Amino acid sequence: MARWEPGAAERLRQAALELFATRGFEQTTATEIAQSAGLTERTFFRHFSDKREVLFRGQGLLVEAFVTGVDAAPPDTSAIDIVASALQSVASFFPDERRSDSRTRQFVIDQNPALQERERHKLAGLATTVADALRARGVDDLAARLAAESCITVFGIAFTQWIREDEQRSLAEIAADVFGELLTLAGKATAHRATPADRAAGQSRETVAARHRS
Amino acid sequence: MARWEPGAAERLRQAALELFATRGFEQTTATEIAQSAGLTERTFFRHFSDKREVLFRGQGLLVEAFVTGVDAAPPDTSAIDIVASALQSVASFFPDERRSDSRTRQFVIDQNPALQERERHKLAGLATTVADALRARGVDDLAARLAAESCITVFGIAFTQWIREDEQRSLAEIAADVFGELLTLAGKATAHRATPADRAAGQSRETVAARHRS
Repeated sequence: MARWEPGAAERLRQAALELFATRGFEQTTATEIAQSAGLTERTFFRHFSDKREVLFRGQGLLVEAFVTGVDAAPPDTSAIDIVASALQSVASFFPDERRSDSRTRQFVIDQNPALQERERHKLAGLATTVADALRARGVDDLAARLAAESCITVFGIAFTQWIREDEQRSLAEIAADVFGELLTLAGKATAHRATPADRAAGQSRETVAARHRS
Repeated sequence: MARWEPGAAERLRQAALELFATRGFEQTTATEIAQSAGLTERTFFRHFSDKREVLFRGQGLLVEAFVTGVDAAPPDTSAIDIVASALQSVASFFPDERRSDSRTRQFVIDQNPALQERERHKLAGLATTVADALRARGVDDLAARLAAESCITVFGIAFTQWIREDEQRSLAEIAADVFGELLTLAGKATAHRATPADRAAGQSRETVAARHRS
């Protein structure tokens, strides 16, 4: 929907974000949002089931973007490259024009424990969905879960950085940087996969790193 | 506290787990827990502020175990090796004798959305605390966040596996395996950190992996 002729849903969303940010989420009613947007309460409820949905409707699209990104990677791509690729396609759904709205939305959520919980719940569900999409491609269960969690971790950190007031880089650039940092970090590990011999030793307090240090 | 002479807190905890698992968390009262343990309601409330605390008291100890593990790593250990080491010390707090109780506790939590939310909240806080402990050691902010999140991811996956009915390995062994799998996964990445040239190109939809494939 073009910016210069926003439809009712977009007008309501903008009005809601503004009111949530200035008055607080709890203190804002659907009626006030509708009034502020020059629309009726009835119109509000034609577009949103409640005021919380104004903040969380985008979730469905985000989940879809991740799954589409995972599905779009070429066959035989490794799990980690699939999620790197998915991160980049998801990042393109957050152009710089959305940065200010995303920042306001996050500010509203950070003020309200119930909204924070909803957000955490969303992120947990997102990791599950990405893992499912990876398994559907034949990635084994453990690798799918680890790659999905890493993907959401990188996305979360990159997103938080993207909406900082002083940040200029695009979300795609930041996500690539954070992802690169994760690989760099992992590359510094001296720990190896535990071998059956390690297990037989059963020295659980001793670190794998120490045992394998070369 | 030895098993053959459990104190009031331990008797209450065992009785509570049993009742939560058989009747459901919501359907169990503090009075019933106390009765089942052969104690008074007053004794219950001397030990726990409410029935939910029976399930979550261990959290403080878990957080402490992670921080202790991070602090105990030798100086100049890389962030990833620090968390590998912390994971191993935390794992030693879950000996096989606790496996059955941990399984029951998780079963109770999985039945109840409010308890699940509390658990998610706990895990989110745990990652923050581990990241703080890493930063306190001089690890830079991004590496600290990534290492901490990876640590909690590995712990969560390993823990879920540890309490499976058919699992025989110790939590330390599983954590080492899952951690090893994460390193293996990261090692397969063909994606690199984005370079300034990549950014200038600004092709956010194209994957970093594709651009850097050698």
